[in-house]
Amino acid sequence: MEFLPPALTALIDELERLPGVGPKSANRLAFHLLRTPRASVERLSRSLAELKDGVAFCDTCAFISQGAQCAICADPNRDQTLLCIVEEPTDVIAIERTREYRGRYHVLGGAISPIDGVGPGEIRVEELLTRLRLGGVAEVILATDVDVEGEATSAYLAQVISELGDEIRVSRLARGLPMGGELEYADELTIARALSGRRPF
Amino acid sequence: MEFLPPALTALIDELERLPGVGPKSANRLAFHLLRTPRASVERLSRSLAELKDGVAFCDTCAFISQGAQCAICADPNRDQTLLCIVEEPTDVIAIERTREYRGRYHVLGGAISPIDGVGPGEIRVEELLTRLRLGGVAEVILATDVDVEGEATSAYLAQVISELGDEIRVSRLARGLPMGGELEYADELTIARALSGRRPF
Repeated sequence: MEFLPPALTALIDELERLPGVGPKSANRLAFHLLRTPRASVERLSRSLAELKDGVAFCDTCAFISQGAQCAICADPNRDQTLLCIVEEPTDVIAIERTREYRGRYHVLGGAISPIDGVGPGEIRVEELLTRLRLGGVAEVILATDVDVEGEATSAYLAQVISELGDEIRVSRLARGLPMGGELEYADELTIARALSGRRPF
Repeated sequence: MEFLPPALTALIDELERLPGVGPKSANRLAFHLLRTPRASVERLSRSLAELKDGVAFCDTCAFISQGAQCAICADPNRDQTLLCIVEEPTDVIAIERTREYRGRYHVLGGAISPIDGVGPGEIRVEELLTRLRLGGVAEVILATDVDVEGEATSAYLAQVISELGDEIRVSRLARGLPMGGELEYADELTIARALSGRRPF
């Protein structure tokens, strides 16, 4: 593409580095931005430039924050006896969207995956145990992904938390058919889990 | 999402304005950028900021350029007797990728679409006729999209170009089965066009 202006190819190159953006979408986005009013493009550029300085990670739970503590940990109305363990900050957002949970979080920053060289030492397990040893948490909800790594992580955490004593209940998110899901198209494992986890009507 | 830092929500808002980026992809992209080294994010920001000043449109063909003339129009090795008419700058890139075409281009900037209020006056038809009247073009290749608007535009252009005299041949891209396309899954119209346009083996 030596016939394109360098300013355009530079942008296409940078866009291609984004996840889920292939060469064709990078082109499409770049040409869209060419037709977009200057003010909008400058707003996008500025919000990127300001991202790193305006975003930090919470010292307590590792969720995204503006300062040392995130808005959720700083909120006195949050139930301090409930602690939900997730793999990534985006999982916190997914749970917050439900508006059903009023406890706090602990972001692990990944899941145990021996194949990828990720052991308990590589994710924030020690920080979790330290938090729990401070007391005050009555229930830990394990909300890792429902895949091999997530299940292994939850199993490991259930074990090490039980070693802290009997005061802390450990639960995990229910498994079953997703809402709107058609039984016909659900996979065998989901149906098996929904059967074994069936509840009185 | 009042619990997210403003720098992050501002970026998510801006990303959501991009075509093909919904709220979930905007989130995913923003969180990816949070984990990306500062230098990469700053490169993306800078390439956006520099886009508008580094890109112009060619005075002759309306393709993307750095100055008054694009690299293709400025290239003396390009065949000046061949002129390919396309709707958008991205179409030029698609054709250039084939490395099969050595002529020049004329970008219309759209297609005739009475329903959207786009007549011949709204796209660069007059500029095309002015170019052709200067002489030197032996063949015009109509390469508009194969949809209602593209076909209407090509039909209109074939008519007005023929009114300029007999010196200019007018052709259009072949229609038929796409490469790698399975006959079984091709639509009726494509098969019909491939049949009527069949060539000796």
